[in-house]
Amino acid sequence: MRPPHWIAAWVLLLHGCAADRPPQAASARTDIRDCSTDPPYLPPTATNTTARLAALRDTMRAHSIHAYIVPSTDAHMSEYIAERDSRLAWMTGFTGSAGTGVVTRDKAALWTDSRYWTQAERQLDCNWELQRTTWIESIGLWILEAVPVGGNIGLDPFLFSIDTWNSYSQALHGSGRTLVPIETNLVDEVWGDQRPPLPSSKIYSLSEEFTGSSWQEKVAGIRQQMEQHVRRPTAVLLSGLEETAWLFNLRGDDIPYNPVFYSYTLLTNTNISLFVDKGRLSAEALGSLQASCPGPLCVELQEYGQARTHLHHYAQGNVTVWLGTEYTTYGLYGVIPQEKLLEDSYSPVMTAKAVKNAKEQELLRAAHVRDAVAVIQYLLWLEKMVPQGQVDEFSGAQHIDALRRAQKHSHGPSFQSISASGLNAALAHYSPSNGSSRKLSVDEMYLSDTGGQYLDGTTDITRTVHWGVPTPLQKEAYTRVLMGNIDLSRLVFPPNTAGRTVEAFARRALWDVGLNYGHGTGHGIGNFLSVHEWPVGFQSNNVPLTAGMFTSIEPGYYRDGEFGIRIEDVALVVEAQTKHPSGEKPFLTFEVVSLVPYDRNLIDLSLLSPEQIRYLNTYYETIRACVGPELRQQGLEEEYGWLQRSTEPFPLGSAAATAAATAGTLAIASLLSALLTGLQA
Amino acid sequence: MRPPHWIAAWVLLLHGCAADRPPQAASARTDIRDCSTDPPYLPPTATNTTARLAALRDTMRAHSIHAYIVPSTDAHMSEYIAERDSRLAWMTGFTGSAGTGVVTRDKAALWTDSRYWTQAERQLDCNWELQRTTWIESIGLWILEAVPVGGNIGLDPFLFSIDTWNSYSQALHGSGRTLVPIETNLVDEVWGDQRPPLPSSKIYSLSEEFTGSSWQEKVAGIRQQMEQHVRRPTAVLLSGLEETAWLFNLRGDDIPYNPVFYSYTLLTNTNISLFVDKGRLSAEALGSLQASCPGPLCVELQEYGQARTHLHHYAQGNVTVWLGTEYTTYGLYGVIPQEKLLEDSYSPVMTAKAVKNAKEQELLRAAHVRDAVAVIQYLLWLEKMVPQGQVDEFSGAQHIDALRRAQKHSHGPSFQSISASGLNAALAHYSPSNGSSRKLSVDEMYLSDTGGQYLDGTTDITRTVHWGVPTPLQKEAYTRVLMGNIDLSRLVFPPNTAGRTVEAFARRALWDVGLNYGHGTGHGIGNFLSVHEWPVGFQSNNVPLTAGMFTSIEPGYYRDGEFGIRIEDVALVVEAQTKHPSGEKPFLTFEVVSLVPYDRNLIDLSLLSPEQIRYLNTYYETIRACVGPELRQQGLEEEYGWLQRSTEPFPLGSAAATAAATAGTLAIASLLSALLTGLQA
Repeated sequence: MRPPHWIAAWVLLLHGCAADRPPQAASARTDIRDCSTDPPYLPPTATNTTARLAALRDTMRAHSIHAYIVPSTDAHMSEYIAERDSRLAWMTGFTGSAGTGVVTRDKAALWTDSRYWTQAERQLDCNWELQRTTWIESIGLWILEAVPVGGNIGLDPFLFSIDTWNSYSQALHGSGRTLVPIETNLVDEVWGDQRPPLPSSKIYSLSEEFTGSSWQEKVAGIRQQMEQHVRRPTAVLLSGLEETAWLFNLRGDDIPYNPVFYSYTLLTNTNISLFVDKGRLSAEALGSLQASCPGPLCVELQEYGQARTHLHHYAQGNVTVWLGTEYTTYGLYGVIPQEKLLEDSYSPVMTAKAVKNAKEQELLRAAHVRDAVAVIQYLLWLEKMVPQGQVDEFSGAQHIDALRRAQKHSHGPSFQSISASGLNAALAHYSPSNGSSRKLSVDEMYLSDTGGQYLDGTTDITRTVHWGVPTPLQKEAYTRVLMGNIDLSRLVFPPNTAGRTVEAFARRALWDVGLNYGHGTGHGIGNFLSVHEWPVGFQSNNVPLTAGMFTSIEPGYYRDGEFGIRIEDVALVVEAQTKHPSGEKPFLTFEVVSLVPYDRNLIDLSLLSPEQIRYLNTYYETIRACVGPELRQQGLEEEYGWLQRSTEPFPLGSAAATAAATAGTLAIASLLSALLTGLQA
Repeated sequence: MRPPHWIAAWVLLLHGCAADRPPQAASARTDIRDCSTDPPYLPPTATNTTARLAALRDTMRAHSIHAYIVPSTDAHMSEYIAERDSRLAWMTGFTGSAGTGVVTRDKAALWTDSRYWTQAERQLDCNWELQRTTWIESIGLWILEAVPVGGNIGLDPFLFSIDTWNSYSQALHGSGRTLVPIETNLVDEVWGDQRPPLPSSKIYSLSEEFTGSSWQEKVAGIRQQMEQHVRRPTAVLLSGLEETAWLFNLRGDDIPYNPVFYSYTLLTNTNISLFVDKGRLSAEALGSLQASCPGPLCVELQEYGQARTHLHHYAQGNVTVWLGTEYTTYGLYGVIPQEKLLEDSYSPVMTAKAVKNAKEQELLRAAHVRDAVAVIQYLLWLEKMVPQGQVDEFSGAQHIDALRRAQKHSHGPSFQSISASGLNAALAHYSPSNGSSRKLSVDEMYLSDTGGQYLDGTTDITRTVHWGVPTPLQKEAYTRVLMGNIDLSRLVFPPNTAGRTVEAFARRALWDVGLNYGHGTGHGIGNFLSVHEWPVGFQSNNVPLTAGMFTSIEPGYYRDGEFGIRIEDVALVVEAQTKHPSGEKPFLTFEVVSLVPYDRNLIDLSLLSPEQIRYLNTYYETIRACVGPELRQQGLEEEYGWLQRSTEPFPLGSAAATAAATAGTLAIASLLSALLTGLQA
């Protein structure tokens, strides 16, 4: 799945890979809405926000606030959020996953990135300006225009990471406007009892079969890291929901697609405090957590809402608290005195979780085998149904979701299925809805980016297909995206290499002919956890690649108004066998664990090098060896036949023949060269 | 030339490409010196520093200082320094280009990187500990051990960049030790009248023939940037020597190999102050600078030593001073109030200088044609002389220097020639001396990394050769280094791409088999200016690549105790012709302007792809077309013949044949695959 983090997009722009920007650049674009007429023209999808804006402004006045900033995240900096945290969506009508709203006494504006411009124009009413950027500097400048000197800018300190808070602080520095943290969320005040309630579903333990190690072993490992750290931290604060879920081998379903639950953890060298709604823990979970009580491996349960107060008390002592600045909120961070902080981008739990042990690797591999079965079933089904004109984007998405759910250990999709036909696939983050869904056709390309949650692992795969006759450009672009996927997947690189150092290998085949894509190239993935798992990936804020990490590899190409291509696999970082020994630590490479063949109809074999073809044939052998038996075991003989057809080895002769053919041009080149020299001499 | 900046090595380690570290890691190594015996064993190359250390400690006591830090740079953060600025060398005996010394009341230590460990052991006496790292954190920890709480750490604020100063400040933060800026340099006090005097040679104007634009045009351009900047800076402070030299089209010879002169410039929106020894300006230079006096294009000449006082006065006003933090010293930076600073990594003069205009590009191209003649003469000479056993590293270096000097517009070498045979080439920064120089032999590889200063441009090229029978590893490694050079040189990439994003293309062919190199891949270069010109290159602190920039491309491979390989060319960033139009701004690629063929004896053609061979043949055609006529014009017929032989097109057939041969393995792969599936079904 395409990394949708705002920060990912930001980093990408910063480092200059987003050259492939669609033509609707900010300046040229006209808004779908027409707010200049009276009454204004609004699409029927727009939400009337007049009343809630008026109510919010009342509370702002009550708090002496001149502007209020509404972000799109929750108190854990989660990428996916629960309904009750969808404050920006409720306030604005805009349901995209990334954006920031600012409301002043008489103005309101929404900032979002290009993925969401069209959607925002369709959902916002004329109370809202749409700002087509996400730079905090831009938000800051807008606030300076809209709020007079002496004004107060309010925000909920629990909804902003330390870094984001600092960025706002810097943008307003010396301007005479003050950032004011308000602990009561003003949107919640207005939302009132219409706000969805707290979840009440059970929080459960993962059985040993599905965990890499016991939670006690994990705690011991983290405590060892604390002891070995030169600063000798006395505690680690976990505010990412997947940190607590991973550490205790617990899961919940508070957030769609992500099996996590509202919680914080303060793990000290002597105590463990888990802040959670105790009543929601299953008996088994409770038993597991409190089996060793009292003692250093006893988990003390505290109210979720008490995390800050508890931390505040703890920070009074002679302590050092280790935390990850990328996702800890200013609200928590602010209660710890500066000299008692040990700041890293990611906590040791986050970095430990990123490196899967042998058992976790096996679990993830196994999940991908069953996931491949579902995707292969889907591809075969499409092949049969699309020519009959019976599939649209929405019914397609429903079908793949159902196929996954039928697989063993399934817990549903790992994100909202992206199912995009023709020009819709050029919107790299398009998801269909029941009402407006394009029919799949043999005359168009179709992009399916989907994933599953299984008890043993999380999956994420994108395949792009064409059932008819692709245009030469479609075929070339697809092949070059595939070449990028292959070139990165088969890369051998030294230990300690950062993802961003090698990311361009996924782009080179496109660059060669002036093409590119405007998103990141990959992201980490969990064992029955987040489909986007930090800090693994190819962006500048990702940590160096290490054996045991899983990352997606997903180059693409998007042609605005025409088609979109993305080829995504999940790959495990493994030690490489190199011809020459590489010194202290072995070199690394990738083992692709997604096991679904690519669309032969879209591959222009003449563009591939012999090495690329050889890689592809080896990969296809692996697919046959791993997925073939599973298909047969599930009695899917037709799918088995499809798999055999789809993984026939590609002839190497073609590439060789091309090379041989061009050798003939050498004579002409020599002749030319001789002539040229003769002329100049 | 290999980027020798300490910061370059640092960044490389930080970003994890330095996997190829030589076996003499800090822990395993034993020192050449033996300081445990009485008297200690010291090599004859060591300098007795007892007296000067005692004298320094006297001055330290007089200033109430408990430790004094001695860096290896000058007040302009120059990479090359004049003799009178070689304080570290004089104080320690160590003459390497990068290092830091710290002297306490009873201890002394030198920090330097792996390039210089052997040299340091040969040059330091037992007064000095050798610390085999360059991390400021390590220096900080050592100081904390050596200096008790309450102690003062002295340093010369004019010898530390803002960033370095801050790093020391952070390393000592909260430790009870105080960083004390002392404006009198204590080493200079001790050095006394033994210190080399200030230079007195003429500072001269470049004739219009050799400049891209007049200094008045350059000043106008910078002032326009000031006006257009959102912060509206009123002045730009230039403390890099090449900034002032470039801006005014002036040159001097204060620093070996670098045609610059001691100076500062404060360019305001209404005035220009040049801080320089006025008496050294040639009449022509003086006339040029003062032709438009009085007025905004009148250059006011001030004493070099007055820069700080003048800046201090200026900063009292309602002003904003724009400067480059990478190379402005704390001594100057500190006199400007924080709110009046506009900080960028590089000043607008540095970034303007980095992008060569059409005329500057032509000048640099022309210099490289004549430079190629000298290098070709040298390679032919070696071919004839080495088998006779008549060349050693030192005489070789002298010969190439002489050949360059004979070329039109020559101003000597652009750095000390690296001339390294056999195992000496594994020390990537080796330069021979008259006394200890290895004889060149047909049984060893030879690496020559040299460059020239010409009035029209600066050059830098490395060729590695073997006149006998290379080992299979030597041939493979050479070919893979060449493949890396080719792959980066022929890369097509989007506008705004950072060098570090594409740097790995120069390493991939080595990585494939478990090899790598431990230095950066390239650096900018000037028009008769620095051979290492910031901020262009492939490191993380370099700016995005832009058409008009020149950079070296120089992958290598080093086998400790055996041999070293580096293949370096200078390349111009140019717009690429891509098959598909690339939107708003064209894609970019490189045009290699170094025009000397590679050693055919070391190329294993079977490793090259048809694309690489085609690229090589095209490059060789360019060499023939550009250098052939120049050789003939200079009457160098034998060299012309050598060039023709050395640039014969390579047969494409070989690569194609390899590909075709491997196609035969396909049948076996298919068979295996079928068998495997059968077994598992």
